[in-house]
Amino acid sequence: MKTRAAVAFEAKQPLEIVDLDLEGPKAGEVLIEIMATGICHTDAYTLDGLDSEGLFPSVLGHEGAGIVREVGAGVTSVAPGDHVIPLYTPECRQCKSCLSGKTNLCTAIRATQGKGLMPDGTTRFSYKGRPIFHYMGCSTFSNFTVLPEIAVAKIREDAPFKTSCYIGCGVTTGVGAVVNTARVQAGENVVVFGLGGIGLNVIQGAKMVGAGRIIGVDINPDREAWGRKFGMTHFLNSKGLSREETIAKVIELTDGGADYSFDATGNTEVMRTALECCHRGWGESIVIGVAEAGKEIATRPFQLVTGRVWKGTAFGGARGRTDVPKIVDWYMNGRIEIDPMITHVLSLDEINKGFDLMHAGESIRSVVVY
Amino acid sequence: MKTRAAVAFEAKQPLEIVDLDLEGPKAGEVLIEIMATGICHTDAYTLDGLDSEGLFPSVLGHEGAGIVREVGAGVTSVAPGDHVIPLYTPECRQCKSCLSGKTNLCTAIRATQGKGLMPDGTTRFSYKGRPIFHYMGCSTFSNFTVLPEIAVAKIREDAPFKTSCYIGCGVTTGVGAVVNTARVQAGENVVVFGLGGIGLNVIQGAKMVGAGRIIGVDINPDREAWGRKFGMTHFLNSKGLSREETIAKVIELTDGGADYSFDATGNTEVMRTALECCHRGWGESIVIGVAEAGKEIATRPFQLVTGRVWKGTAFGGARGRTDVPKIVDWYMNGRIEIDPMITHVLSLDEINKGFDLMHAGESIRSVVVY
Repeated sequence: MKTRAAVAFEAKQPLEIVDLDLEGPKAGEVLIEIMATGICHTDAYTLDGLDSEGLFPSVLGHEGAGIVREVGAGVTSVAPGDHVIPLYTPECRQCKSCLSGKTNLCTAIRATQGKGLMPDGTTRFSYKGRPIFHYMGCSTFSNFTVLPEIAVAKIREDAPFKTSCYIGCGVTTGVGAVVNTARVQAGENVVVFGLGGIGLNVIQGAKMVGAGRIIGVDINPDREAWGRKFGMTHFLNSKGLSREETIAKVIELTDGGADYSFDATGNTEVMRTALECCHRGWGESIVIGVAEAGKEIATRPFQLVTGRVWKGTAFGGARGRTDVPKIVDWYMNGRIEIDPMITHVLSLDEINKGFDLMHAGESIRSVVVY
Repeated sequence: MKTRAAVAFEAKQPLEIVDLDLEGPKAGEVLIEIMATGICHTDAYTLDGLDSEGLFPSVLGHEGAGIVREVGAGVTSVAPGDHVIPLYTPECRQCKSCLSGKTNLCTAIRATQGKGLMPDGTTRFSYKGRPIFHYMGCSTFSNFTVLPEIAVAKIREDAPFKTSCYIGCGVTTGVGAVVNTARVQAGENVVVFGLGGIGLNVIQGAKMVGAGRIIGVDINPDREAWGRKFGMTHFLNSKGLSREETIAKVIELTDGGADYSFDATGNTEVMRTALECCHRGWGESIVIGVAEAGKEIATRPFQLVTGRVWKGTAFGGARGRTDVPKIVDWYMNGRIEIDPMITHVLSLDEINKGFDLMHAGESIRSVVVY
């Protein structure tokens, strides 16, 4: 079949909207009609050539929602007509990682996914006979795409595609970091560095679980209003502040330091500040942001010996097939909000504008609706 | 009263054995006759002038056991005749840290202890009218010393002083890191870097809780026999190995990486190796060793985002008054061993020889018996 898609033919070039050839699902795979997809910083990171493992030509996009249109042999957990969210972190429920109960980082298809291939080592997309790589196992910048069954979360049918697609990455990453990774308890103080599409979801996750003070830190004063909209109780503009000054302010606002801090900037210097503003004895800092290739984080070991904990999270610690439907419920029940974060709705032909808006800091989230 | 003590009059000089004047206990304090004291790397670190906050002249020593001889006004938890272990990490049971239930880092007397003073801001030791500083709130290199009541753990009277003094630091630090900080479960794989007086206690703690593989890593091949004596199942001589090579060996021995790794070297490069040899998704690395002043730890944030956790421990996460008596029980019940680790017994007059043995790597633990 044919599918209309935005293709990244090479790094640092705008996406091109073309018709691709798409093979149907093989055994254990499903064909999905993508109804909407968000545009995330990670797509831009790859398109800008910053990801040393980025592959071209490829169909980017990993934050989508759609409808199953066809299933391959042996598929039992979804059927044509089911509404689904594609998962860049699958959940096979059989590998050592899934069975450990300690991590969401399923390894079942990691090797092929990292190479832009389906589990059998081939691609379903091609253009003029030439294979086009998959991206993060999802490729939601194509109207139709193929995914392994274990990388598809079935969701309720009354959830709008235009907003629930954001649960495919940003919402789950931010809310999940609070709920699954940090496991913030009611009354605990939370500090969030970076009030973009991830940080705002950390804030609303913290609000949902009844956190005490929820402090947002950003160098863009326009983000204060955004933070407060989702539950931020205090704003700290850290522009021009040294690390020590930022830490001192957080310690003052929290009577000793954060119980949990979150880096949603990807800046390794900010990651250090986030750790060191944690409370002596128990504060935990969670790295969410993706850093530039080759950058390292550093601190004095004394920070750890005196009780601070440094950890990270990917896809908010969520086991996709199990947890994503719950987050869709939270959205539909009004426990979290998504609609105000979708600042721009575009057609596929306008997709490059979504990247421009993101780079200019003008959008929280742009969504392409097919 | 007079007390015989080994005094650090200045950095980088041998201790001098002299008679000091000792004031009796004030309100909330106790006078203890120290019966035995271990010599720990931290004493040497301070004596060598490496601790930028080290104070002189002072009475070093923080790993002792003895008998309460007198109590000040208001003391209720111990009485003359009680056998006790002095605590450099007190347990007031009333400060924010104690009440949090999340840390052993009691802050009740932190400010004065760090200045070498008792809680009222004065010293009990003096020499020819000149005050002599306390050290880590303990000063066990004196036959008699004064401590706050909250810094004294009462222990059973059948425990020999010569061996149980080691519970005042090394044993609790190593065993506690496993039991309190990492909370290792039966069957989990443990990797220990540095098989000295702390690392061997990590090993026997891991054995006690039923760990799976217990892998010891050291550059001194003589330490293999020591490790095996306390429960180590595999030895890795990392001399000449790159970080990547060491990590690859650990991953091979553990089928993917350590569930828990411990740094007992104080070397910041080793701390990085310890983190990065942890299992993707859940491995936790615990920093125990004290690094040189100014040294930093570093890694790529990807290590954390893919599920590894970096934390530290001080005094093995033990709440001294509560947990030290339990560890004494474990020793007396044969669940852990101490006797073989006490490689040298000295008189106070021979204390400088204990430092020489440690620097030469010839002792696991030297103990001074009064």
